[in-house]
Amino acid sequence: MNFSSKLIEQAVEAFATLPGIGKKTALRLTLHLVNREPGQTEQFAEALQNMRRNIQHCTICHNLSDLPVCNVCGDVRRERSLVCVVESIRDVMAIEDTSQYRGLYHVLGGLINPLEGVGPSDLTIDSLLQRVSLGEIKEIILAISPTIEGDTTMYYISKKLKDYGVSVSSIARGVSFGGELEYADELTLGRSIISRVPYKLDNE
Amino acid sequence: MNFSSKLIEQAVEAFATLPGIGKKTALRLTLHLVNREPGQTEQFAEALQNMRRNIQHCTICHNLSDLPVCNVCGDVRRERSLVCVVESIRDVMAIEDTSQYRGLYHVLGGLINPLEGVGPSDLTIDSLLQRVSLGEIKEIILAISPTIEGDTTMYYISKKLKDYGVSVSSIARGVSFGGELEYADELTLGRSIISRVPYKLDNE
Repeated sequence: MNFSSKLIEQAVEAFATLPGIGKKTALRLTLHLVNREPGQTEQFAEALQNMRRNIQHCTICHNLSDLPVCNVCGDVRRERSLVCVVESIRDVMAIEDTSQYRGLYHVLGGLINPLEGVGPSDLTIDSLLQRVSLGEIKEIILAISPTIEGDTTMYYISKKLKDYGVSVSSIARGVSFGGELEYADELTLGRSIISRVPYKLDNE
Repeated sequence: MNFSSKLIEQAVEAFATLPGIGKKTALRLTLHLVNREPGQTEQFAEALQNMRRNIQHCTICHNLSDLPVCNVCGDVRRERSLVCVVESIRDVMAIEDTSQYRGLYHVLGGLINPLEGVGPSDLTIDSLLQRVSLGEIKEIILAISPTIEGDTTMYYISKKLKDYGVSVSSIARGVSFGGELEYADELTLGRSIISRVPYKLDNE
């Protein structure tokens, strides 16, 4: 592209470093900023700078946090004996959005992936074991995707946890509530038959 | 979305003000910045701030420019008697990318659109007439899309230019070079037959 302005070119190149944003989209975003009030670009840039300068990882669960201890770990009303182990902050947000879970979290920061050189020591597994060793935690829920990397990671963690006497569970998988059987993928449907649960009448 | 961090939430909201970027994409971009070096976020934010603080409109052609006079208007090798009138800076970039045009530009900053309250006085038409009145310009090329708004704008400008004794042309339209007839849209194909040009043998 032939930019007549070096300033525009630099802004476009800055946007284009973001994932999923090509040169054309970057130009569209840049021209959008030009057409908005200058103050809005300042606010936009400052929100990003402020976030990046001050964001930290919770020293307990490794979730992203504004303070050394995150909102969840710092909330005295949450069940401290229950810890849900997840891959990333997105999973924390997805689970929090359900409003169904009142325990704590532990964010691994990835999954064991030998092909990409990610070993157990690159994740926060040691920190999880240390948390468990303090004795307060009674149950660990593994909420990790059942991919090759996810299965490897769950296997590794559950093996490590064996000696600590905590119960380890993984989240239920099957056909979605309200999901039509004919549209469920074969693997999910097959496994949901294998791991069927007793049918309960309401008055039982 | 349930953000455990106010900083993340503010950054996501900042991204989500951009066109075509929803909350999910905004979160992906924010987490991408968290995973990159802090210095890269600073550079990103500074490129945008620097652009917005210093960008200006060329005082001659109204193209975006780093200086009061843009690269094109300031280039003494360009044909100063020829001015191409376009809607926006994107059109300037598209034409510059062809490397086929050596004249100057005039950026209207939009098209006449009564429905959206854009009248001739909201565009840079007066400034164009003033440029023409200086006498150096011999030809005006209208490179404007043939939409209702574009046609209205071209009609208005050509009427205004009538008294100045400059020749006014519009860019050639027809089936693309290398384009298959069967894939051309009906309007383009129909008009390209009506506005057919004499076939020239090479030795003519």
